[in-house]
Amino acid sequence: MPNKIYYPYEEFIEDLKNLTEKIDQPFDAILGIARGGLSMAQMLGEYYNLREVYAINTIGYDDTQKLKSVEVFNIPDLKSAKQVLIVDDIVDSGDTLMEVLKVLKEMYPEVTFLTATLFYKKTAKIAPTWYVKEPKGWIEFFWSEDLRNV
Amino acid sequence: MPNKIYYPYEEFIEDLKNLTEKIDQPFDAILGIARGGLSMAQMLGEYYNLREVYAINTIGYDDTQKLKSVEVFNIPDLKSAKQVLIVDDIVDSGDTLMEVLKVLKEMYPEVTFLTATLFYKKTAKIAPTWYVKEPKGWIEFFWSEDLRNV
Repeated sequence: MPNKIYYPYEEFIEDLKNLTEKIDQPFDAILGIARGGLSMAQMLGEYYNLREVYAINTIGYDDTQKLKSVEVFNIPDLKSAKQVLIVDDIVDSGDTLMEVLKVLKEMYPEVTFLTATLFYKKTAKIAPTWYVKEPKGWIEFFWSEDLRNV
Repeated sequence: MPNKIYYPYEEFIEDLKNLTEKIDQPFDAILGIARGGLSMAQMLGEYYNLREVYAINTIGYDDTQKLKSVEVFNIPDLKSAKQVLIVDDIVDSGDTLMEVLKVLKEMYPEVTFLTATLFYKKTAKIAPTWYVKEPKGWIEFFWSEDLRNV
């Protein structure tokens, strides 16, 4: 069992600020991968004064023989976007981000996709363009914990 | 000028908990109105163990003669939903929520739509099914403030 690490709101704000200091390419839309990337997408949209804040959904299916397939749906209209910043809380196996990028690039070959996450595991199949930290255990994000502990 | 009231994360958690205590009808999907409803949608999705957390976008246009028109786009696929909880931070004029409901009910006549917000102004054209508070001024939500003040 990996050790559980509570990740409080205050640390999220510090890390998100840190992330904005790393992001050195322009973008005209933010796309949060649901659910993990939604708060990030909202706060970054406010920070960058971007109203073009969208969401996308994925479901992971555990197939036989350790293969994991990811279905991507509710793809937003990105016709008028040039650079899109995709955000998520963590790149763990990399399966989700890889499939999201594949589907979006096929659908919008003219758009540049950039990716930013709070956490990134070096063992993942794909690295985000920018990230803040490597996880040292199982992260218990405040958004899954705080409402249960009021 | 209305007085500005800072709305911190801690108050948000208390209010969101309060909101969950009021919500007394079942739902099988949560739809956050971007940007204001995204953090709420994420946290409520975690709280209710619902992975069906979606987003929808709106743009308000100020037409001539005080008429405001709202365009609704990036409508998620709700074909397999029965009851959908629409969430937003505030019902102010009510224009956004009214148009979102109109578009969704036209598109999904079989689905029951419920609405929940943190704030509701009694002068709005429409009331949410559940809300927590009336705003006593201009609310400065933590998601627009905290990242700028780290």
